[in-house]
Amino acid sequence: MNIPQSDKKRIVIIGGGFAGIALANKLRNKNAQVVLIDKHNYHTFQPLLYQVATGGLEAGSIAYPLRKVIQEYEDFYFRLTSVKDIDTKNQKIISEIGDLHYDYLVIATGSKTNYFGNKDIERNAMAMKTIPQSLNIRSLILENFEQAVLTTDQAEKNALMNFVLVGAGPTGVELAGALAEMKKAILQKDYPDLDISKMQINLIQAEDRVLNTMSEKSSAAAERFLTKLGVKTCIGVRVTNYDGRIVTTNANVSFETATVIWTAGVQGAPIAGLNSDALVERVNRIRVNEFNQVKGYDNIFALGDIASMETVEYPRGHPMMAQPAIQQGKLLGENLIKLIKSKPMKPFKYKDKGSMATIGRNLAVVDLPKYHFSGVFAWFVWMIVHLFSLIGFKNKAVVFLNWAYNYIRFDREGRLIIRPYKKRSFVTFTSDEV
Amino acid sequence: MNIPQSDKKRIVIIGGGFAGIALANKLRNKNAQVVLIDKHNYHTFQPLLYQVATGGLEAGSIAYPLRKVIQEYEDFYFRLTSVKDIDTKNQKIISEIGDLHYDYLVIATGSKTNYFGNKDIERNAMAMKTIPQSLNIRSLILENFEQAVLTTDQAEKNALMNFVLVGAGPTGVELAGALAEMKKAILQKDYPDLDISKMQINLIQAEDRVLNTMSEKSSAAAERFLTKLGVKTCIGVRVTNYDGRIVTTNANVSFETATVIWTAGVQGAPIAGLNSDALVERVNRIRVNEFNQVKGYDNIFALGDIASMETVEYPRGHPMMAQPAIQQGKLLGENLIKLIKSKPMKPFKYKDKGSMATIGRNLAVVDLPKYHFSGVFAWFVWMIVHLFSLIGFKNKAVVFLNWAYNYIRFDREGRLIIRPYKKRSFVTFTSDEV
Repeated sequence: MNIPQSDKKRIVIIGGGFAGIALANKLRNKNAQVVLIDKHNYHTFQPLLYQVATGGLEAGSIAYPLRKVIQEYEDFYFRLTSVKDIDTKNQKIISEIGDLHYDYLVIATGSKTNYFGNKDIERNAMAMKTIPQSLNIRSLILENFEQAVLTTDQAEKNALMNFVLVGAGPTGVELAGALAEMKKAILQKDYPDLDISKMQINLIQAEDRVLNTMSEKSSAAAERFLTKLGVKTCIGVRVTNYDGRIVTTNANVSFETATVIWTAGVQGAPIAGLNSDALVERVNRIRVNEFNQVKGYDNIFALGDIASMETVEYPRGHPMMAQPAIQQGKLLGENLIKLIKSKPMKPFKYKDKGSMATIGRNLAVVDLPKYHFSGVFAWFVWMIVHLFSLIGFKNKAVVFLNWAYNYIRFDREGRLIIRPYKKRSFVTFTSDEV
Repeated sequence: MNIPQSDKKRIVIIGGGFAGIALANKLRNKNAQVVLIDKHNYHTFQPLLYQVATGGLEAGSIAYPLRKVIQEYEDFYFRLTSVKDIDTKNQKIISEIGDLHYDYLVIATGSKTNYFGNKDIERNAMAMKTIPQSLNIRSLILENFEQAVLTTDQAEKNALMNFVLVGAGPTGVELAGALAEMKKAILQKDYPDLDISKMQINLIQAEDRVLNTMSEKSSAAAERFLTKLGVKTCIGVRVTNYDGRIVTTNANVSFETATVIWTAGVQGAPIAGLNSDALVERVNRIRVNEFNQVKGYDNIFALGDIASMETVEYPRGHPMMAQPAIQQGKLLGENLIKLIKSKPMKPFKYKDKGSMATIGRNLAVVDLPKYHFSGVFAWFVWMIVHLFSLIGFKNKAVVFLNWAYNYIRFDREGRLIIRPYKKRSFVTFTSDEV
């Protein structure tokens, strides 16, 4: 990997998500050599992926160059690659660009979509965990409408305008709301030759309420908001299959649709090479102790979504979201410095700051640890928290400007098919065109 | 194509570039049915493609949804497709989504890269006429540096850091300047483990000066600015081949490089089906009279880059740039309305508003018809003209914000590899990752 030898201990961080970045910040100009590895050259602000998918924001507004994060950090290195294996005996990682020795290894690879083993769904549904995936969804939505304009077959038209979202966690709820707003504010005007009232947004939730990790009050408010926006919710219904055309369920409903977006499950994205008892098989997470040390290893750590720290309060590990990742990353930074100095480490204690979801303009729900509220004020809180959580001044400013414009004009100008998703038979590109 | 029949005359416009949009605007709510066809669902502001390629702007900032352009126009239709053929006898176009009858046909398909028949160059060099192409260049530049970090072979490192730009028209000059600024302000900081002083930007021009369509004064200033920024210019040198590694020329110089960007020629992008004497073979443009009527046809018109209107002042047709396209589009809009009303059409007279190019911060050249100037003031003029030429308030605001940020911070945060260009062996993506 062409990393220079150094007298300092080498800390290798795999993953530049919330956890990896928080850790890197803490290790800035400390007595260690740090190598940050990611398969993208940018950090993704995942909470706003749904706005990229629905044309409200450009991809670049929620991405931040990883090399810029560590630009002025001494003895810091970035490498763009995928890590394939860990050789714990020889303390090295095996990647597509070569091996690398580590003194301390931190696995912060995050999570990926969980299809619970259903290959049909995996093949036919869209996922939304990365920027390229979000851009694919954006293209597919628009391509569906371009195709619906052309067909005279009403069943085909309806299938193209039927959007089935599986999973009503924050991602599913936010995406459903954004699609409903697109329908009203944009698609109706953009496609005067289509009967847009036929467009359906179906949100399917296997659990007994939407946003089932939030308070019951917030769930109820969110469901009210969704209904108000025209989203149809199917509660307590489990999707059993999707063959590319028909969604089947365990209930007496099925859907004919060209588009299924699957946000019904996440699982860890682990790396091969660890002892099998370090792995929580059900969700592919890595078992860690209160110092985020991987079970069975002194010098390997796991952070964030991939880490399962089983505590009394969180017997199945912390929720797979940004806050635990950031808090663990920060603490591990301090602990690694202590470890190098042979001082005792501090155990992790999660500080729950609450959670929130936005459904549409002026419509959001916020659960603070002791107080739950919804509506316009919640929506403001949601915006401010997300704006300030973005990395970099420029991204903050551009996102703010887009939001202000979209709010005032009821518009989303990112409805651009820059990377076509469908292999359309009706448009072929020559080498000069793509 | 599923366009409703109407009593009004049907005008079909192929291409949503500067000419097509200007024409569509003029035909708004007039006594005609209008069908606008493009192979992208967005208009591209081509003069700023080089900033997308060098990470200064996001693609979405210089693209504008075509459906939004015609959103409130009565009896206007948009279709996303490529037109393959024209059946002039039966007055219909043949596209990948079906045929369409026209009463009046307007060809505004613009231009594409001209490799002058060299297949090696076409295969190995990068073009920059579309947004996807610009994003490919952006990825390639960054991928080169990620690869250069890994190799210990100095020749390989140098080839990866050597950028050869062929053609010193405005596009080549602006791209060379932007690369030089990236080198100084970004790459040096982003890649501390590389000797960025080894990065080369070579600009090769077959003609006897850079910007040879501008005044000699502006050429001289531009060349001075380029030299100041560290760009090496090779004047009077013609590239004869590029095999993917070595650029050969007709002079005593050759270049070892992983990246050639070809801006040395454009040609029209015509459609099959017209009489052969309507075609200017050398540049693939379509011969038109002073009403932009295609030679040999009463009801077929061509506009902008694709149209060659041979006049005393412009014996080889107007320059292939935005201004003639816009002016012709506007006039044809008025003329078509006259034609429908059986009134006489007005001949086209090109009003040369001048031309300009920016080389770097505070460095630009402007040729007004009677006055040529360069430097900071020219740079301001360049910015204001380009800002106001962008379609849409949001794009103007976002571009302005980006420029202000980039200027103050000497930065370009769009250095994101969102669509990898190289088929890198060192990163493979699984279905969930891309």
